[in-house]
Amino acid sequence: MRTTPPLHTGHFVLTIRCADAVGIVAGVASALASAGAFIIESSHFGDPDTGLFFMRTEFRPTEARFRTAEDFQIVLKPVAQRFDMQLALHPAQSPMKVVLAVSRHGHCLNHLLNRWHSGELPVDVVGVVSNHDDMRRMVDWYGIPYHHLPMGTDKAAQEAAFLQVVEAAGAELVVLARYMQVLSDAMCEALSGRCINIHHSFLPSFKGARPYHQAHARGVKLVGATAHYVTRDLDEGPIIEQDSVRVGHGMDANALVRIGKDVENVVLARAVHWHAERRVLLNGLRTVVFRQGGA
Amino acid sequence: MRTTPPLHTGHFVLTIRCADAVGIVAGVASALASAGAFIIESSHFGDPDTGLFFMRTEFRPTEARFRTAEDFQIVLKPVAQRFDMQLALHPAQSPMKVVLAVSRHGHCLNHLLNRWHSGELPVDVVGVVSNHDDMRRMVDWYGIPYHHLPMGTDKAAQEAAFLQVVEAAGAELVVLARYMQVLSDAMCEALSGRCINIHHSFLPSFKGARPYHQAHARGVKLVGATAHYVTRDLDEGPIIEQDSVRVGHGMDANALVRIGKDVENVVLARAVHWHAERRVLLNGLRTVVFRQGGA
Amino acid sequence: MRTTPPLHTGHFVLTIRCADAVGIVAGVASALASAGAFIIESSHFGDPDTGLFFMRTEFRPTEARFRTAEDFQIVLKPVAQRFDMQLALHPAQSPMKVVLAVSRHGHCLNHLLNRWHSGELPVDVVGVVSNHDDMRRMVDWYGIPYHHLPMGTDKAAQEAAFLQVVEAAGAELVVLARYMQVLSDAMCEALSGRCINIHHSFLPSFKGARPYHQAHARGVKLVGATAHYVTRDLDEGPIIEQDSVRVGHGMDANALVRIGKDVENVVLARAVHWHAERRVLLNGLRTVVFRQGGA
Amino acid sequence: MRTTPPLHTGHFVLTIRCADAVGIVAGVASALASAGAFIIESSHFGDPDTGLFFMRTEFRPTEARFRTAEDFQIVLKPVAQRFDMQLALHPAQSPMKVVLAVSRHGHCLNHLLNRWHSGELPVDVVGVVSNHDDMRRMVDWYGIPYHHLPMGTDKAAQEAAFLQVVEAAGAELVVLARYMQVLSDAMCEALSGRCINIHHSFLPSFKGARPYHQAHARGVKLVGATAHYVTRDLDEGPIIEQDSVRVGHGMDANALVRIGKDVENVVLARAVHWHAERRVLLNGLRTVVFRQGGA
Repeated sequence: MRTTPPLHTGHFVLTIRCADAVGIVAGVASALASAGAFIIESSHFGDPDTGLFFMRTEFRPTEARFRTAEDFQIVLKPVAQRFDMQLALHPAQSPMKVVLAVSRHGHCLNHLLNRWHSGELPVDVVGVVSNHDDMRRMVDWYGIPYHHLPMGTDKAAQEAAFLQVVEAAGAELVVLARYMQVLSDAMCEALSGRCINIHHSFLPSFKGARPYHQAHARGVKLVGATAHYVTRDLDEGPIIEQDSVRVGHGMDANALVRIGKDVENVVLARAVHWHAERRVLLNGLRTVVFRQGGA
Repeated sequence: MRTTPPLHTGHFVLTIRCADAVGIVAGVASALASAGAFIIESSHFGDPDTGLFFMRTEFRPTEARFRTAEDFQIVLKPVAQRFDMQLALHPAQSPMKVVLAVSRHGHCLNHLLNRWHSGELPVDVVGVVSNHDDMRRMVDWYGIPYHHLPMGTDKAAQEAAFLQVVEAAGAELVVLARYMQVLSDAMCEALSGRCINIHHSFLPSFKGARPYHQAHARGVKLVGATAHYVTRDLDEGPIIEQDSVRVGHGMDANALVRIGKDVENVVLARAVHWHAERRVLLNGLRTVVFRQGGA
Repeated sequence: MRTTPPLHTGHFVLTIRCADAVGIVAGVASALASAGAFIIESSHFGDPDTGLFFMRTEFRPTEARFRTAEDFQIVLKPVAQRFDMQLALHPAQSPMKVVLAVSRHGHCLNHLLNRWHSGELPVDVVGVVSNHDDMRRMVDWYGIPYHHLPMGTDKAAQEAAFLQVVEAAGAELVVLARYMQVLSDAMCEALSGRCINIHHSFLPSFKGARPYHQAHARGVKLVGATAHYVTRDLDEGPIIEQDSVRVGHGMDANALVRIGKDVENVVLARAVHWHAERRVLLNGLRTVVFRQGGA
Repeated sequence: MRTTPPLHTGHFVLTIRCADAVGIVAGVASALASAGAFIIESSHFGDPDTGLFFMRTEFRPTEARFRTAEDFQIVLKPVAQRFDMQLALHPAQSPMKVVLAVSRHGHCLNHLLNRWHSGELPVDVVGVVSNHDDMRRMVDWYGIPYHHLPMGTDKAAQEAAFLQVVEAAGAELVVLARYMQVLSDAMCEALSGRCINIHHSFLPSFKGARPYHQAHARGVKLVGATAHYVTRDLDEGPIIEQDSVRVGHGMDANALVRIGKDVENVVLARAVHWHAERRVLLNGLRTVVFRQGGA
């Protein structure tokens, strides 16, 4: 029923982070070429501030001797050691497993599920967690397990159950799709670098609660949304994507809430898409986002 | 289950079109004031090119003697006659009845239904028509009648059945939410001024079939979407709303299709929202859109 | 040499602020109609939060008996008194006199002067004030008096000289076009409601010094600019206009500075344009901006 | 007086185009690494439609033995021959020489000159050509030669004089900054791939004359601008950059003209900037634009 996602059978995605130096690209590209890898897309970035080098390369094998991730791992090992690289190699055809979390506002959940269902989001949604039961019927329709984990008196227990769902499902990524709970420090640590939140403001403006009401009170002429990695510092995590939309004096806070939802939907879906394609690399408190060419 | 839309009990929406002249606003506003109408929002536009005057006023009664549409119709009659106005008065609390039409791409349908279901689109979706059966399960979930009207050899018969659904449901508006059929001239006439289509390009660029493929071939750096009233001239009807999004050389036509969907969703939902709030007035081949203040 | 601005001979702009009530529009429109005023453009806004009503009406006389501002003042007096209005009536054909202030970054100054010189900004630039001498040659070219008022040890004396320039030139508006000085409280008071600043960030993000460097450090994906009225609270004044532009990980703070200038230029010019056409009304800490129809 | 542009002393920009194959990046990167080149920024694109591969690499030397363009040309020669590359290597510190052409609308000219003068546009403006004398005073201010080449009866002679200016000044690029003349086929050929035009519409909409008036008549809700390479097919050349801005029913064609200028300025300056940094590569009727990272 669900459309097959547009994954590229046999493609691999290689991501690298290391100290910048002469010869990195040459080393990696030569290793890949020696194994017959045809490069589909490749992006680099050397950050002059931090001296770090980032690279993402998507390639497909062309020779029978080199077909598996292991084959290429072996080929890349010398250059990885030489430059002391953090190197990851993933087959592109296995979509990233994702758990979504939601509270009572279902627009982002609906948008992600519709995108996923039509085969346009390169992920595999393996479960939905919620502290409420409101979204169960929607999730059931998609045939996805719904985990109602109410927020009782024992927050630690609820988070443990949440994490248990993530681990049991083998999820690589957790998406807080308007999950209106602040995660504990321990939970943030456990999901470090693999938990994306959508905040309904143009950060760093209007952190915390009711950002549209704050925005209305301040009289801004644009409202926005921000997708970022969750860290212990509330709404301070590395930003993946942002966008904004024009508002006017004739709109009350409720109108901002309504209009902002379109931006939230799009910003969060982009961030999930890019993360799932391993286009987002952490660079301290910032991110490197290797978007698809030229946009 | 469905959230009640944010309709304003007791509000009325008055729309006027007539030849421009001194005294129109004074006449209308005085009539309303004499009946205790408190103006919530009011917009005017005099087109110097055509000499036409357009007005939309939203008000609520404050006096017990004037409460119904009929009461205000009577009060407005003299000024309407004096200026030979096309005048319409609608209670704002009764949402506009709408029939949606779709073929196989369900994103706009999903977006409209989700918005409607969460009480944010001031319409009442009374049916969905499709020439395919693909979207039935989605529509069933929302508890809306699904009318599968396949496009066989007899186009006239199919359109007659379509119109029959519209009339039987008492729908004021038909929305072609990626309904991939060209309506006959007769059908266009029957739905004149009350049928909105979403075209997946920034009109007048890329009329007709496969606009994203046309856009890719031309190498544009933005793609867009256009919501317009359907007329006999294909993709030439009065434009209600447009928007665009940046694309790049690294995106093939399929990527444009995927990215463009977000713009289609938003542009169509805005157009439907504004039409349903009677903010869109026809001005020849163009539209006057009285958007909410200042955005 | 300079192109005549597109001012509308004989037009008047009426702005009104008062407590909202039944009958205001009727009263104003009837008074105008009784004097033969043909309404070109009219906008209203009633703020449900504050209970205030705002109105801007542009009209032209059609009867020989009513031609001057005084004629219409007399006609409007009864309704103004009845609703205790703050009412202002200005002939549209006399452009607003403006003094610009700049320090060393000349892009906004250049943009405003070029716009003014080509007759597109409905103002009369009567002088430029600067705490540096860098921009003198550019200002000389336009034939505008340049007042070099260096910021020595006596800030109060410098500000007194600045105010003296404003008053002597009969300027109604002061525009801080990248004037890198914080005005004293006294100066803010003296220019209250008639001094527009451009801040090179998307307020309330990144107040104060070096906002692009702050933005780069935070890793935002959009940078913006904000035009606002100057008040005693630095970068907290009522916002008139904002806009933003996309940036990426490969841009250092200097690239943000460069890219942001385009947004600063456009945002400031819009704010000045709207203020000069008396489209901006203060609503506490926020503004009502009656933009030209429908955009 | 003029600020030095932000050119990177000692940097080189390498651009490559060839048929895509395994080993290209490895070959180029290895050659560069063998000569101690430190890669600042590198972008690739393989077009699956055309089978072409594009690459732009910015690097700086780190070894005394390899310092000049010739040194690197020698190093790159084997790989260039092996893959039959179109390869170009330019020192980044010598700004590209540019001739601007203008008729009577000076906004784009003013914007480019101001950007250039403040050291933000990495070009060297070596002359301005115009078929009118209107802009002489502005150009004189900047100390640039102004060539008034009126369009008399002999178009071929005028174009010959235009080309003579370009060649005599050693200009690599010609920018039509609102030059309201259609170039002859011969002129287009002579400037093939090195002549950028700004068209004041969102192409392919509204080709030819008076695009804003066409846009107003069609009732579009956004207007745009397009920077493209000039070819024999009017307004059909490869697009480098586009952008758009919202308009509304209350704006006449003149308002569109005014509002559109901001978009024209920004779009043209971006295209010139990218071309001058050799970020734009021709791919048939389309362009590859290697923008600065991630925006």
